[in-house]
Amino acid sequence: MNAVAEFSVIPLGVGVSLSPYVAECERVLQERGIKHLLHANGTNIEGEWDELMEAIKECQTRMHEMGVPRIQTSIKIATRIDREQTMAEKVESVKEKLTKE
Amino acid sequence: MNAVAEFSVIPLGVGVSLSPYVAECERVLQERGIKHLLHANGTNIEGEWDELMEAIKECQTRMHEMGVPRIQTSIKIATRIDREQTMAEKVESVKEKLTKE
Amino acid sequence: MNAVAEFSVIPLGVGVSLSPYVAECERVLQERGIKHLLHANGTNIEGEWDELMEAIKECQTRMHEMGVPRIQTSIKIATRIDREQTMAEKVESVKEKLTKE
Amino acid sequence: MNAVAEFSVIPLGVGVSLSPYVAECERVLQERGIKHLLHANGTNIEGEWDELMEAIKECQTRMHEMGVPRIQTSIKIATRIDREQTMAEKVESVKEKLTKE
Repeated sequence: MNAVAEFSVIPLGVGVSLSPYVAECERVLQERGIKHLLHANGTNIEGEWDELMEAIKECQTRMHEMGVPRIQTSIKIATRIDREQTMAEKVESVKEKLTKE
Repeated sequence: MNAVAEFSVIPLGVGVSLSPYVAECERVLQERGIKHLLHANGTNIEGEWDELMEAIKECQTRMHEMGVPRIQTSIKIATRIDREQTMAEKVESVKEKLTKE
Repeated sequence: MNAVAEFSVIPLGVGVSLSPYVAECERVLQERGIKHLLHANGTNIEGEWDELMEAIKECQTRMHEMGVPRIQTSIKIATRIDREQTMAEKVESVKEKLTKE
Repeated sequence: MNAVAEFSVIPLGVGVSLSPYVAECERVLQERGIKHLLHANGTNIEGEWDELMEAIKECQTRMHEMGVPRIQTSIKIATRIDREQTMAEKVESVKEKLTKE
């Protein structure tokens, strides 16, 4: 089952700077070869459901290993069986509507 | 890794009534013996990370089998290694603060 | 425009205990007379869109006044114009489906 | 109070194609001159809390006017008082950590 997802991690108990932890998650995605796009409010990913979920779990595990006592993660994950649709196509589809008028 | 989570599914392309699909997800949780609490904006669950994620995936799969072409799911999942904390304890902890004053 | 919503606040830079801040948000809701239900992963609220959003903003402001340097808040908010539906009715609607089978 | 936010709207009861509605929300943001970035799982926005929330509300209202009976919107909104931080700076901050190693 293919999915388009977004996740964001919020480590608690390590101060206000989250970037070292988000960077570690980026490394997880790079190592696993998962297509991803970091943006200001999370990271977009696409691929097989299990691959995505395992990556998110590894990200969580590694952050705990870095010493984070508590983590709140939020995930949006979308699947469709009527047709395939990549992240790029989702954005493209909106942009077409915008330029038509 | 123990987790406290919440998920909500939004089936698209099947009209405005979501309850048959949410009910199917409740059945998945019951069948799997996962502690869960349905509320107005999602379902709270607690247990092992993998158990929770597999249940959410089965819920997604079953909804597609019911004919839902597209599903948007949102998940909040929290882990902590400093101490164990159940869903009930999270609520209790806030209520204590409220009654103290 | 009536809405059913859920919000959860994550204060950063104040350690791992979130309950004092969640409790403060509960007080905001009580003071404003907004119907609310605290659960393990957030607080459900219902009422006029503007009332709900103002309450969430006050909650955010008060947490900063308590000394929280950074806050991540997540909100789900749902509106429908086909019919009215309260939080209680949303849950009831799923439970009916469950008992029918 | 300045905020960095993300929102995504899910119209129900209008089939599986969401792009016309997301496009309408993009128009709202353009008309209001709010800095925004559309991505595969939502739209990132930044500005004054009230400006952002009013834009999201107008987006919701317009979608109902387009005939959408039911809408589920999810919002992440973050504020910080320790320092200012734009959306671009949030991403930059993670990228610096990545290239350092």
